[in-house]
Amino acid sequence: MDYDAIAEYIKRNNIRRILVQAPDGLKPLYLCIHRVLSGRAELYYSSSPTYGACDLALNEARRLRAEVILHIGHTEYPFLHIKPEIPVLYIPAYYRWTPSKKLMDDLADHLKSLNAQNIGLVASIQHTHSLEQLAEELEKRGFNPIIGSKPYRVADRGQIIGCDYTSAIAIEDFVDVFLVLAGGKFHAIGLALSMSEKKVLGLDPYTGKIWDAQGEARRILAKRYYIVTSLANKGFSSVGVVIGLKPGQYRPRIVHIIEEYAKKKSICVYKIVSEELTEDRLIAIDNALALDIYVVTSCPRLALDDLEGFYKPVLTPAEYVMLFTKDYTYRYPW
Amino acid sequence: MDYDAIAEYIKRNNIRRILVQAPDGLKPLYLCIHRVLSGRAELYYSSSPTYGACDLALNEARRLRAEVILHIGHTEYPFLHIKPEIPVLYIPAYYRWTPSKKLMDDLADHLKSLNAQNIGLVASIQHTHSLEQLAEELEKRGFNPIIGSKPYRVADRGQIIGCDYTSAIAIEDFVDVFLVLAGGKFHAIGLALSMSEKKVLGLDPYTGKIWDAQGEARRILAKRYYIVTSLANKGFSSVGVVIGLKPGQYRPRIVHIIEEYAKKKSICVYKIVSEELTEDRLIAIDNALALDIYVVTSCPRLALDDLEGFYKPVLTPAEYVMLFTKDYTYRYPW
Repeated sequence: MDYDAIAEYIKRNNIRRILVQAPDGLKPLYLCIHRVLSGRAELYYSSSPTYGACDLALNEARRLRAEVILHIGHTEYPFLHIKPEIPVLYIPAYYRWTPSKKLMDDLADHLKSLNAQNIGLVASIQHTHSLEQLAEELEKRGFNPIIGSKPYRVADRGQIIGCDYTSAIAIEDFVDVFLVLAGGKFHAIGLALSMSEKKVLGLDPYTGKIWDAQGEARRILAKRYYIVTSLANKGFSSVGVVIGLKPGQYRPRIVHIIEEYAKKKSICVYKIVSEELTEDRLIAIDNALALDIYVVTSCPRLALDDLEGFYKPVLTPAEYVMLFTKDYTYRYPW
Repeated sequence: MDYDAIAEYIKRNNIRRILVQAPDGLKPLYLCIHRVLSGRAELYYSSSPTYGACDLALNEARRLRAEVILHIGHTEYPFLHIKPEIPVLYIPAYYRWTPSKKLMDDLADHLKSLNAQNIGLVASIQHTHSLEQLAEELEKRGFNPIIGSKPYRVADRGQIIGCDYTSAIAIEDFVDVFLVLAGGKFHAIGLALSMSEKKVLGLDPYTGKIWDAQGEARRILAKRYYIVTSLANKGFSSVGVVIGLKPGQYRPRIVHIIEEYAKKKSICVYKIVSEELTEDRLIAIDNALALDIYVVTSCPRLALDDLEGFYKPVLTPAEYVMLFTKDYTYRYPW
């Protein structure tokens, strides 16, 4: 983190109140911020989850009258519906990582077993800085690594996020296998869902595990198709459209499309507003309204991950549209 | 609910977008609202919990560009820190209730066993309309019932809320025993905590149960004193001050007082901002910062109810101040 630049910004702009926000995994960085900036301005630390740069704490900042948000761990989100009324400093937090010789040898064996020569390399923001080195190591072992493109102005080369895979899509045609460098499974599964015919491997820099994201994505797709086709057969007469209000998750145009489809079939629509959609919030709504299905228009991953076990169908907008168009091509993210 | 008045308001003010919010227990009223108002305006239903009129969905309304909030189940909160920038229609939801003869006889026996003659009657907003009848029935049985005062302009006579008991305090000197008509234990325990020397009974209209709120409050106080005195002996060197941002729960002056006390003893203060303080949010913060104690400045009940089992001390502002003043009088609500 470039503390000098932040301190300089505070001084130059005469900042008195700062709201700091970070995803839970990076909240320990609050300690570093406090050590360096305490005394230079009043510091407030958000306890909220922060799932991405779509999830700016603008409401918190407004109420506190903070003059700047320090947003840790993400680059600026290009699809914000609401232009922030106060400045946001995006502070990516990179993980320092050097792959071991053993890991690289294992990876090379794995790729050879897949007959892969052209390897597409992408990463979550924490790991984009390691892609160059990963590419070098793969080159040494006779592969042709291709780092993903720079998807938009403020992002890093090869960066993917939960709802944007353009850095990978740009190189898709030249690639035999994608390798996603990211902690956990979230990013690699997202990429595999967005291009279900392409082989996608995950490489977790924290555990050193190499895993088959395409396989996992296929299991998810099987479940999703089961939910959608059952519903297409059975029909439904009411839908709860969940509208997320985070600055990058409010998508009124999609809400409108969903309503229009429902109207044509005289399906009853309830528009449900959500600051933070968790299972207990959906239970509270369903206890009260007992609707047939729910469509989540905020983050396209909520239906697939957090709420995939809900006792009623919870769909992405694309899955909902399938019910009407009967075009069963899976579209992710949408 | 006076649907005609709402429909009239919509028409007169040319309202096109409405945000409806209700506590979880009253969310089924969304169905009634929908039946009556659908087609007259665009309706949006909040999935958020809504703990009181301190908890207005102003952020949700702003982002949706709603022109009015229908706030179900509470009367206007008199201590809002933020003046709502859009109109809020407060729609109390009263529960129709007639006490059975058996319940009244049981209650009379109970009160006689306590040698109580002057019975203070207060209720949560859902039940204030039943206080008159309850008073009549008590009078018939030879008691002197006294309905609590009207605590502020927009409240009902005898109404108490989680953080305001002035309707009871106004009649305290004339009362032998308080009877709190409310579902669950929340309101009666609050009253008992606010006046620990007065006998307080709860009467739950849903279950017909009469119970000893003073006894429960004493058990809670024993726990609280144990936490506070242990901490006073052991000392602490860091504190997380949790700042709630709901319109009626943002109390910057209390935050300032807490900071000032800490400064005098060189205790390190982290100001933690919270939209909705749940145990998992406090865990996320404590995992990152590992502070010695937390003080919740938003709702005074969070430390006592929701977070009373947390693995580190979570205090109310009044309990925190005890640690410095060594005045161990219990002050609730504060």
